[in-house]
Amino acid sequence: MTPFTDHGASPTLTEHERSGPPILGDVHSFPSYAEQARSLVAAGAMATLSTLTNDTFPFTSMAPISVDGDASPIICVSELAEHTRNLRRSGRASVFVAAPTVEGVDPLAGPRATYVGTFVPFDPDEPTIERHLEAHPHTRGYVSFADFGWWRMEVQHLRYVGGFGVMGWAGAEDLAAARPDPIIGAAPPMIDHLNDDHAEACTLIARHLGCAETTESATVTELDRYGVTFAATGQFDEHRFATVRVAFPLPLDAAEQVRGATVELVRRARAVTTGSSPSERPEHS
Amino acid sequence: MTPFTDHGASPTLTEHERSGPPILGDVHSFPSYAEQARSLVAAGAMATLSTLTNDTFPFTSMAPISVDGDASPIICVSELAEHTRNLRRSGRASVFVAAPTVEGVDPLAGPRATYVGTFVPFDPDEPTIERHLEAHPHTRGYVSFADFGWWRMEVQHLRYVGGFGVMGWAGAEDLAAARPDPIIGAAPPMIDHLNDDHAEACTLIARHLGCAETTESATVTELDRYGVTFAATGQFDEHRFATVRVAFPLPLDAAEQVRGATVELVRRARAVTTGSSPSERPEHS
Repeated sequence: MTPFTDHGASPTLTEHERSGPPILGDVHSFPSYAEQARSLVAAGAMATLSTLTNDTFPFTSMAPISVDGDASPIICVSELAEHTRNLRRSGRASVFVAAPTVEGVDPLAGPRATYVGTFVPFDPDEPTIERHLEAHPHTRGYVSFADFGWWRMEVQHLRYVGGFGVMGWAGAEDLAAARPDPIIGAAPPMIDHLNDDHAEACTLIARHLGCAETTESATVTELDRYGVTFAATGQFDEHRFATVRVAFPLPLDAAEQVRGATVELVRRARAVTTGSSPSERPEHS
Repeated sequence: MTPFTDHGASPTLTEHERSGPPILGDVHSFPSYAEQARSLVAAGAMATLSTLTNDTFPFTSMAPISVDGDASPIICVSELAEHTRNLRRSGRASVFVAAPTVEGVDPLAGPRATYVGTFVPFDPDEPTIERHLEAHPHTRGYVSFADFGWWRMEVQHLRYVGGFGVMGWAGAEDLAAARPDPIIGAAPPMIDHLNDDHAEACTLIARHLGCAETTESATVTELDRYGVTFAATGQFDEHRFATVRVAFPLPLDAAEQVRGATVELVRRARAVTTGSSPSERPEHS
């Protein structure tokens, strides 16, 4: 399981503290934090927005976001809403987006990102408005109301958490330079399919290709062009949970390639269990 | 459709601004904001937690919460987590909880609550710990780790949003005095059932009992002991959406009564469409 590291800024694992559940397998095969965070918001998302009250308490609310060309979060909010009153006093805010939770998995094992920065009112061009409305069709009913206005966040930095032991900060430059991962946005239904219909195969992959031989069961929590992340249950030293990462043989370019790549992982995992060499077995067993 | 108002502090609708989508029907039949907010967290919830960074930006993250006897949010968080570092500098925080989204409905039409206050470290008693762990079984794997500690929010006030046009503030006293609604916590599967299997009946109820005759379709977004809230599509003056509220004939005591009460609403709505008096029709047609 040689991890590949040819994909730019690879997250360091210095923040994976010894006391937390372990992270095992191809730990250097994650996309960068900025790529992962950008991928979570690329198609727009329902976010929680935090602003500052007049006595400087953080105030959290709900806001549909889309993103600009440099991945700056964009909102269209009513002047009557509490968060907008707060933004009129101070643009300081954070925007939090989480991937859909995976059934049966601790929500804290799932990917999420916090963008921290300052919202400034702005006049979006037509493509920007259209992209926002496409991401949030319900908002077509009211974004044109007189009390609604557009704001864009000048991102200062972002915090990405990919699950236990996978977390870190990225700067605005990293974010602007990052491209969305071609798989992450399309991953949720593929993740559900793998967990619902191929649970045994997932466990085999984590156990035999993720350096996690004591895995009892493994659930996919994240899927990107470089590989698969599992939340594994088992006994890992004193821990009952681990994050297990398994890289694909080669990085993928499109969601259509996920099936072939996971079939190949299953083949390799089965080859380990039977003791046969991968090359002795047919490609799509 | 005479709304009843005998359930204590009824929310005023002063914040329902003229420019937003209208709210129609039994608008005085909602539980109080404090009751609704308390009901959302009564069984524990996955919340977004907002804290203050060292340069006073709001920072949002994810945290499982439970609540104390007076509905104060409780968290058990790692000293290694960003939000805990923030809380060590300033306990000022907010906790945001939203009801599960309803398929096909604008997430902004759904109920949610923001608790604003100050987190303080505390030593929970055994029942408090057990209640938290029951609400969040995944956390059993790590709450006993040395770096995890318990914090309780001293609530200053809360903001409740029940959907378009239904929103307001409540104080800590209101919250401590409020009892959870006996229906709200059990509502999500009943809401799904009503929307999936009784869409036509829901539309009839909103149209004929909610003073919303131009309703084309209505989806249940909230269910409590006093009645049903719908997100309605249609033409409501210049608006394409409305919040429609229909009260039950009598307040309910338990989730088991929801079925009978909604059947009765359907009967009454059908009686309006056929022009017959409700009393002429059998009870469970």
